[in-house]
Amino acid sequence: MAQKPSVPRGTRDFSPAEMLRRNYIFDIIRRTFSLYGYLPLETPAMENLSTLLGKYGEEGDRLIFRILNSGNFLSGMEPSTLVGADSASLAKHFSEKGLRYDLTVPFARYVVQHRNEISFPFRRYQIQPVWRADKPQKGRYREFFQCDADVIGSDSLLNEFELIRIIDHIFSELKINVIIKVNNRKILAGIAATAGAGDRITDITVAIDKLEKIGSEGVRQELLQRGITPDVIERLDPFLSLRGSAASKLSGLKREIAASPEGQKGLAEMEELFSYLGMEPTEARVELDLSLARGLNYYTGTIIEVKADDMVIGSICGGGRYDDLTGIFGLPGVSGVGISFGADRIYDVMLHLGLFPEQTGAATEVLVINFGGEELMELIKIAAALRDAGIATELFPDAVRLKKQFSYADAQNIPMVIIAGSNELKAGQATVRNMKTGEQTTMSLSALPEFIREVKSH
Amino acid sequence: MAQKPSVPRGTRDFSPAEMLRRNYIFDIIRRTFSLYGYLPLETPAMENLSTLLGKYGEEGDRLIFRILNSGNFLSGMEPSTLVGADSASLAKHFSEKGLRYDLTVPFARYVVQHRNEISFPFRRYQIQPVWRADKPQKGRYREFFQCDADVIGSDSLLNEFELIRIIDHIFSELKINVIIKVNNRKILAGIAATAGAGDRITDITVAIDKLEKIGSEGVRQELLQRGITPDVIERLDPFLSLRGSAASKLSGLKREIAASPEGQKGLAEMEELFSYLGMEPTEARVELDLSLARGLNYYTGTIIEVKADDMVIGSICGGGRYDDLTGIFGLPGVSGVGISFGADRIYDVMLHLGLFPEQTGAATEVLVINFGGEELMELIKIAAALRDAGIATELFPDAVRLKKQFSYADAQNIPMVIIAGSNELKAGQATVRNMKTGEQTTMSLSALPEFIREVKSH
Repeated sequence: MAQKPSVPRGTRDFSPAEMLRRNYIFDIIRRTFSLYGYLPLETPAMENLSTLLGKYGEEGDRLIFRILNSGNFLSGMEPSTLVGADSASLAKHFSEKGLRYDLTVPFARYVVQHRNEISFPFRRYQIQPVWRADKPQKGRYREFFQCDADVIGSDSLLNEFELIRIIDHIFSELKINVIIKVNNRKILAGIAATAGAGDRITDITVAIDKLEKIGSEGVRQELLQRGITPDVIERLDPFLSLRGSAASKLSGLKREIAASPEGQKGLAEMEELFSYLGMEPTEARVELDLSLARGLNYYTGTIIEVKADDMVIGSICGGGRYDDLTGIFGLPGVSGVGISFGADRIYDVMLHLGLFPEQTGAATEVLVINFGGEELMELIKIAAALRDAGIATELFPDAVRLKKQFSYADAQNIPMVIIAGSNELKAGQATVRNMKTGEQTTMSLSALPEFIREVKSH
Repeated sequence: MAQKPSVPRGTRDFSPAEMLRRNYIFDIIRRTFSLYGYLPLETPAMENLSTLLGKYGEEGDRLIFRILNSGNFLSGMEPSTLVGADSASLAKHFSEKGLRYDLTVPFARYVVQHRNEISFPFRRYQIQPVWRADKPQKGRYREFFQCDADVIGSDSLLNEFELIRIIDHIFSELKINVIIKVNNRKILAGIAATAGAGDRITDITVAIDKLEKIGSEGVRQELLQRGITPDVIERLDPFLSLRGSAASKLSGLKREIAASPEGQKGLAEMEELFSYLGMEPTEARVELDLSLARGLNYYTGTIIEVKADDMVIGSICGGGRYDDLTGIFGLPGVSGVGISFGADRIYDVMLHLGLFPEQTGAATEVLVINFGGEELMELIKIAAALRDAGIATELFPDAVRLKKQFSYADAQNIPMVIIAGSNELKAGQATVRNMKTGEQTTMSLSALPEFIREVKSH
């Protein structure tokens, strides 16, 4: 057992300091979701493979972590099945369950399974880890957290509007400057149709989606590879490089894609959305970005993506409307729209930009020095009184050297230390040391909770 | 895809109503842990099998969910390895990772791995799901949550005392009447030695641990099966059936097991613990129960178990001191003590006894009826103003029949509905309907937030 223990590649421990910062993010997200009437939901880490497979494309299927059947997973298998089999076909015999890959498919599965208990429109949020057998690299993990809010069972664009307000609310509370990019799949379909490739909308969006990553020449190459003809690409180009305000883009488009009924519908939806945003403007800039595509092919209307202004990093939030997510599980025709926050990237942005408050979350506020001996009972009572007053308090458990106890307080960033030796206790007093300033104040024991509450609130 | 979707056996979805109740429990546990200086920690769902295997006994190893290696897990395997192999030996080739089985072993792994970054004594809490491939049955799940608090790197019995106070604090906040049973492994060892079977302490504790489940005759049979001689069993019996106060049990034992130094040490520890409890008594009864053994063989000192008074169910919290948990990972001689709350059983107890507050947690407080048309913009502003005041608000997204919107509010248990049609809005007013009493109050729009806050606080 001399081998140094470790965690699997691509997974992480979260230390107390990291957890306090992470909870700061999760708390703001959770509180905002609730404020807009979204309710918490949790689904199991494991799903049946029949639920997961075929929902994320071929590549996605390969990235699903599979769980070995428990017990004797070979029982009933012919030896001949084993020999010469490839791992993919063999896995079917060994494994019926997988770890959840995102929160959207489990949500769709939940809605269909519980449709008779749900009142629609159903607004839920879900903050849970997901797992992907991706090659780990900087900023990409095999276990990471998603924070999703979706409303299902309503076509209204008020939902999109409110989700954008939720995004704005969360990032302004986190003090991250962002730009919220929106587009509409129907507009993209209208553009594709106008360019003479209405049947190739999937190829076109998948390629456009990579614009930021591979540049416009890269997109051009990708489109060519996908068999889009050069003249179509030529006709697509001016749309994707349109500049100006949302209103001017929309009015330009209205003429350009007049012949596409779907495109016109997308424009009307976008106008309605911007009219709501005009009435109740967001702090962040909302930009109509015609090059925004989002690769996932279940989106059918509005699409949304959020980028940090002050740091180069992928999108930190994204989402969109899907008209038939639950169809795959046998409940067609239910429209929904949702957004997903990437907690790990948000964490990286906040750390990089120094946006976490100094004292994040509920860390210990007071350490009571343990002098042992007969005074211990008094110290126990001091700690109990502070806790009764709602102050997070530790009594150092061992009566070791003062130096050791103080360096513990330092290492733990505990802001206040209470020193009450036998002389002080005889006088019914204790000394509070402010660990940052070094200032020491002596007071009666009964004044302690009030004093510490005062220091806390400053 | 006509097949009705479902979750894997032994796993569960948690609906919004269930989540609000579960969060009520988790919040109280988390807040109390923090109040005593315990800090949050999270470890990955997956651990290397080398971390997990051999820590939970043979049966435990079988119950670990294993994750199939990703990619081509057959690569490098000889076909001959496959044929005739049993599943256990084959699994070694396919699988290097497993799902965490409890929170204690990952915690020990964390402490050893990060020992140079940790200041001891290290107090951490951890609230995460664990997975066991157990046969699912009523009240036993394959995915369930543990809530653990441990302090490591301190021998002091003040830690045990504070953990008992944490237990008391949590259950009294949850309004569950409990009895807290304590014992000490060293006392059990002293009893075993006195009975002439000091070398059989493990067999004896494992058997005694089942007392509640199989009765004293069952324990007797189990002890016989484990090769404990009838005369030893005869001598053990009076100890386990000792009655009376902790003080009287302790003073009786002092004579009876005088010849066992380890037993005497256990008695001294128990006396110290009860002296602290005498100074700062708990609300719940703390009972010295000499038949309490707790099966896990890493416990070396104090052991703790909590039972609900008003419902027959297994223990809802338990724990104890271990002197060498991190030894298995190469860091010997570090003593720790911890407790673990079973959130699922606590949930069942609270539901059964009706202990959840009526309005648990942050559910939606107000529904604004959507009349559509030109008034919509006004309704958007009303919803925004309520949210600015911290009131969880939904604006119904579609302008459907009033009846449908009201029955949605009913189904969601939303306590207040705001009705503001064109006439009311022209007068700058709105009507609030209390959905429980049916009472309606009309007021100016600016008075809404204050009115709703008042109703909320009653």
